[in-house]
Amino acid sequence: MTPYGDPVVIELINTGAELLLGRILNTHQQWICRQLSDRGYEVQRQLTVDDSASAIEAAVAEALVRADVVITTGGLGPTCDDRTRERVAALLGRRLVHREEVVDQIRAYFARFGRPMPERTKVEALVPEGATILTNAHGTAPGLAIPANPRPEAEDRRPAWVIQLPGPPRELRPMFTEYVLPLLEREFPLSEPHFSRTWRTSGIGESFLEERLEGPLRPYLEKGLDLGFCARVGEVEVRLEARGADGAARIAAAAPVIEAEVGESIFGEGDELLEMAVVRRLSSMGKTVALAESCTGGLLAHRLTNVPGCSSVFLAGYVTYANASKCRMLGVSEETLRENGAVSEAVAREMAEGAREDAGADYALAITGIAGPGGATLNKPVGTVYMALSSAAGTVVRHHLNALDRETFKFLTTQQAMMMLWRELSRTTRPPT
Amino acid sequence: MTPYGDPVVIELINTGAELLLGRILNTHQQWICRQLSDRGYEVQRQLTVDDSASAIEAAVAEALVRADVVITTGGLGPTCDDRTRERVAALLGRRLVHREEVVDQIRAYFARFGRPMPERTKVEALVPEGATILTNAHGTAPGLAIPANPRPEAEDRRPAWVIQLPGPPRELRPMFTEYVLPLLEREFPLSEPHFSRTWRTSGIGESFLEERLEGPLRPYLEKGLDLGFCARVGEVEVRLEARGADGAARIAAAAPVIEAEVGESIFGEGDELLEMAVVRRLSSMGKTVALAESCTGGLLAHRLTNVPGCSSVFLAGYVTYANASKCRMLGVSEETLRENGAVSEAVAREMAEGAREDAGADYALAITGIAGPGGATLNKPVGTVYMALSSAAGTVVRHHLNALDRETFKFLTTQQAMMMLWRELSRTTRPPT
Repeated sequence: MTPYGDPVVIELINTGAELLLGRILNTHQQWICRQLSDRGYEVQRQLTVDDSASAIEAAVAEALVRADVVITTGGLGPTCDDRTRERVAALLGRRLVHREEVVDQIRAYFARFGRPMPERTKVEALVPEGATILTNAHGTAPGLAIPANPRPEAEDRRPAWVIQLPGPPRELRPMFTEYVLPLLEREFPLSEPHFSRTWRTSGIGESFLEERLEGPLRPYLEKGLDLGFCARVGEVEVRLEARGADGAARIAAAAPVIEAEVGESIFGEGDELLEMAVVRRLSSMGKTVALAESCTGGLLAHRLTNVPGCSSVFLAGYVTYANASKCRMLGVSEETLRENGAVSEAVAREMAEGAREDAGADYALAITGIAGPGGATLNKPVGTVYMALSSAAGTVVRHHLNALDRETFKFLTTQQAMMMLWRELSRTTRPPT
Repeated sequence: MTPYGDPVVIELINTGAELLLGRILNTHQQWICRQLSDRGYEVQRQLTVDDSASAIEAAVAEALVRADVVITTGGLGPTCDDRTRERVAALLGRRLVHREEVVDQIRAYFARFGRPMPERTKVEALVPEGATILTNAHGTAPGLAIPANPRPEAEDRRPAWVIQLPGPPRELRPMFTEYVLPLLEREFPLSEPHFSRTWRTSGIGESFLEERLEGPLRPYLEKGLDLGFCARVGEVEVRLEARGADGAARIAAAAPVIEAEVGESIFGEGDELLEMAVVRRLSSMGKTVALAESCTGGLLAHRLTNVPGCSSVFLAGYVTYANASKCRMLGVSEETLRENGAVSEAVAREMAEGAREDAGADYALAITGIAGPGGATLNKPVGTVYMALSSAAGTVVRHHLNALDRETFKFLTTQQAMMMLWRELSRTTRPPT
């Protein structure tokens, strides 16, 4: 039962020996759960078992006692245990039938690469009678949606569904969006519409956000609005949820409170990452940026260039790891380095100014610090970092102490640097009050 | 039952509403499963439930019917449902007792940051009677190891164990290595010792590896050696496993076959990443490297600088996204750009040579390509990439077509580029035959 009284019980079964041996990371769990929770559905249980026919059959049988919807991932390919299809079909009281349209799809898939269809992939065309075929646009094994008997406790006696999806994420994800979500919304409509809105913030802690928002939001929460927070490295999500026909209106009424209280820390909504927000804003302003990185070693450039279309705003990155390269590539003076050390306000400043000038960019960010585990000095512990933002308006330098493991240090530091730029861009574009 | 007849049944229970809402990624599953499988233990099931006391209690009770060892993650902190401790203790027939040494540990933890102990963390000192306390070096909530009744089918009637671990990875991981693995090896020694060795390869497909190794390894496999493969983006793992007192000797006998057949594709063993292998090799040779990246946008520099100590070998990275920066930073000629386009063999060559000269490095890698989704032309589809390696011996350029999503493209391309360098370094250091 979801907390709202919608009796849609969903269970997720990930299959694969490699998951239980720890050879691969289970990314399906987060992705599928997120897709569902964004639409007001909740996964009650997630289970991983190996991909043998008996393990999959047992897990599906067990889940059907509790669930309306059982989603499995993996175990559909041509090299998987042949008996999986057979046993899941038998469990649901269905025989396997050959569906020629699946063969056609597989053949068309291979034809795209100019290759003949391997004979053994034909097994993928054997599907339980009555199953809905979910076309695989990025691979051979189709997904399957198979009606089953209602779970014993289902009051409305709606049939349950077993939905089998292929293992590779690039096959599973489009299939889930295109077929599974619409099927779910058709077969198990929520009793009340569900609305949510998520703001993404950076540079402010979860407890401070809570303190700032709790009081001003109270009247809205009392009218049936849920407020939630989710903290990650360098970022906290603020989320409002509401059920009922007027849910959207209730969220819309509360939104200005959030924006008024913590707007300067908000960089985006929904799934927008900070690098996406920065590229979007620079792009809409027609401005460009250059990056000079020492301790973050290219991560900031990597993150910005993960955003399609960043080439219109990102000109160049200078990963000046060695001191000599700081001088040669960015024009940092040897005297500044000698007097202040590479990890200093003065060097961060010269790096940013040098990058901006050399690249001819409107903005430049520079980062210099000690990622650790080595490199600390008496006055500069591991985690010390200076970051500078240079623009036509001048150069600003900030100091942080990010005493964390190397990987977290690099991520958090790039987050802080991007947030410096984001705030400057917001300040510039915000109408004067 | 493990395939080897060791009756140690292990189940993992991850708890947390945020896991089921898809707000955070479950990294515990892979990490814990990997730690165990490397030592010959196997997790039979992994389950995620929310972190309410009732859900955790039900999941533990269910698992104890099947398992010798039940490991839970999360649900131990001071803000978690207070009743969790109580109900799990009751399930195991134990009352909660106050353990003053836990209070001392928590107080010492806060003292390190010069902060007083918040009163509410005292609840963490309430532990089931008879539990072993697993000290938390990186947080407040201790882990707990609690003996329980043997599972119904356990023939040897060894007591089962419930092991409760805190949620944050930096708290859980050292605790697992320091306390949980030794406890497991003491309470559930394998009937036969377990040995494994893993080689990491790149630039060769799983099926080719299988083809090359199957025949030559057959005599060794027939003597009871398991051969396994695990493919990831740009990498395939080859693994030998053996049980029994002479397992290590049987693996050692087969190892030269693997090295003779596919040695040129092997860059490391165990958990070593390609970037670690490259830094280690450069470092031992006393050589330096510079990087010029266009389409990979700094990822190659990021990966190399993830390796502690890389500052002795990595001099500078040039993320020359704009054409103008390729000319200015690396001395690529405008004519070469105009005649060949930025994504071309000629530009890759000039980028590598320019980076090597400007940085004064022994080696330089350069990458130019089309990451997509935009940027394709008639002759250069998305995924086209040229990569060059420049050294005192000259410059070599390779072409690949990595027609993948942007993120996978970037990763695979940096893998291919590092492998070019790795092979060159291996060639240089290998004694002539």
